[in-house]
Amino acid sequence: MSGVIGVDWGSSNLRAFRFDDQGTVKDRRSSAHGAAGLAKEDFPRVLAEVIGDWCDGGTRIVMAGMVGGRVGWQEAPYLPCPADPGQLAASALPLETSLGRAWLVPGLSSRNADGMADVMRGEETQLLGAGVGNGSVVLPGTHSKWATMQDGRIMGFSTAMTGELYALLCKHSLLGQLAVAAADFEPEAFKRGTRRALDARTIVPLLFSARADVLLGDMQGTAVESYLSGLLIGGEIAAFGAQPVTLIGNTALVERYQLALHLAGAPQSLVVDGDCAVARGLWMIGEHL
Amino acid sequence: MSGVIGVDWGSSNLRAFRFDDQGTVKDRRSSAHGAAGLAKEDFPRVLAEVIGDWCDGGTRIVMAGMVGGRVGWQEAPYLPCPADPGQLAASALPLETSLGRAWLVPGLSSRNADGMADVMRGEETQLLGAGVGNGSVVLPGTHSKWATMQDGRIMGFSTAMTGELYALLCKHSLLGQLAVAAADFEPEAFKRGTRRALDARTIVPLLFSARADVLLGDMQGTAVESYLSGLLIGGEIAAFGAQPVTLIGNTALVERYQLALHLAGAPQSLVVDGDCAVARGLWMIGEHL
Repeated sequence: MSGVIGVDWGSSNLRAFRFDDQGTVKDRRSSAHGAAGLAKEDFPRVLAEVIGDWCDGGTRIVMAGMVGGRVGWQEAPYLPCPADPGQLAASALPLETSLGRAWLVPGLSSRNADGMADVMRGEETQLLGAGVGNGSVVLPGTHSKWATMQDGRIMGFSTAMTGELYALLCKHSLLGQLAVAAADFEPEAFKRGTRRALDARTIVPLLFSARADVLLGDMQGTAVESYLSGLLIGGEIAAFGAQPVTLIGNTALVERYQLALHLAGAPQSLVVDGDCAVARGLWMIGEHL
Repeated sequence: MSGVIGVDWGSSNLRAFRFDDQGTVKDRRSSAHGAAGLAKEDFPRVLAEVIGDWCDGGTRIVMAGMVGGRVGWQEAPYLPCPADPGQLAASALPLETSLGRAWLVPGLSSRNADGMADVMRGEETQLLGAGVGNGSVVLPGTHSKWATMQDGRIMGFSTAMTGELYALLCKHSLLGQLAVAAADFEPEAFKRGTRRALDARTIVPLLFSARADVLLGDMQGTAVESYLSGLLIGGEIAAFGAQPVTLIGNTALVERYQLALHLAGAPQSLVVDGDCAVARGLWMIGEHL
């Protein structure tokens, strides 16, 4: 039963994949025990509960994500870009567990031309697993990542806090007070927000228009969330540039990015399933351990 | 005892000014009963508690701010820019109260060249009272307002949600989790944030650097709030342009804007005290009632 098991252990949940010798996923499991809610001593027990029956003494377990963060099982330092699967494996932190040998994949750091720093943890595995040799890969989400790939290596990346800002504005801001929960996504409001952000190239003078438009009767409260989503995704594309990209993520969110990229004049983007990308990335790193 | 009383009744507090016949403030009072916490029927009682003994049958009471908003005493609609004190007075909503005749000053609306809407309520009174005939006036705060004055009229304005975003990011975001409450403002961190925002001209790819810098050891947690403040104020100035302005507001915040405007290469800005501006603006509108 020996072999490789991959675990993507993020802040809010855990996904585990059991591979055969060719890297095909034979079995998968998930758990709601994300790293953010666990004390250090809980990690081995949770892992045993989820994948214990998959393991024998020879199993190799590759773990990526917040499990290797400051509040995780143990901290695996950030590896500077550029980075490939072999370098991530060489820098992985070995752990002895009752289930077999385990490794914590490091996060990545990146610096732009001005020396400004950025970090990721967990996304590096999805980026590698997307199968993009050369080009830009975008992981939309709480902290959207835009990465540049060259010959299968991650050359560098930048983060936009689009998803987190969206949640903060909807839940905690004065804009959210006028938002009426809409049953459906409102594409026209989303497109208006996207176009405005693409034109202005900065969202600073735009966000408050979500309030002004409602107070002046230009927009219904049900459209506020879609409009804000458009402003923020449009602002992200304006900042990083309309370009051909590969998108990784859940269908609803990826569709919004496709629509916004289309409005920005970017060529049709490719889409890769997030589960497939993370499993493939874990396997690629595991091959080098 | 007849005469004019001015009331600036915002969401979180109330400031009242009793004027002599020349518009000099003879007495002032304040109350923590902001409009946001009151039911419609509470407004007359609170007003009587604060200024009842100033009034006789002939008193004229000019009220501006959220007291005239949707959840205020009564809603005074937004008046479109351009607007001067006479037009605000002509559009003020009269109210009969037990203390005398009262008026609710309307808010203002503005549309930029692209038709994008903006609104203010209460700030119009401070803008008029700043005594700027021609030029730009900035009211830093939760929702910073940048207004253009011409011959003493408010020609138009734009809002940046700088103060609200700062509070959201410090209190509710992942960035705030790494922030350690600093005893003091850290000017070097503020300046670094400001310079980065001025260079980038958009804050979208910058905000997350507050987290990356701490995780990579480039910045102490105590500097996070000052750095974020610099990013946001720098982003505001980048959006609206480094220019000679008159600043109205509290000393600590105005000093940050002066520093950021200096870094942006703007000429020395003028500063007007917020209390003086609001009292003067209420008097100017009251003269036309």
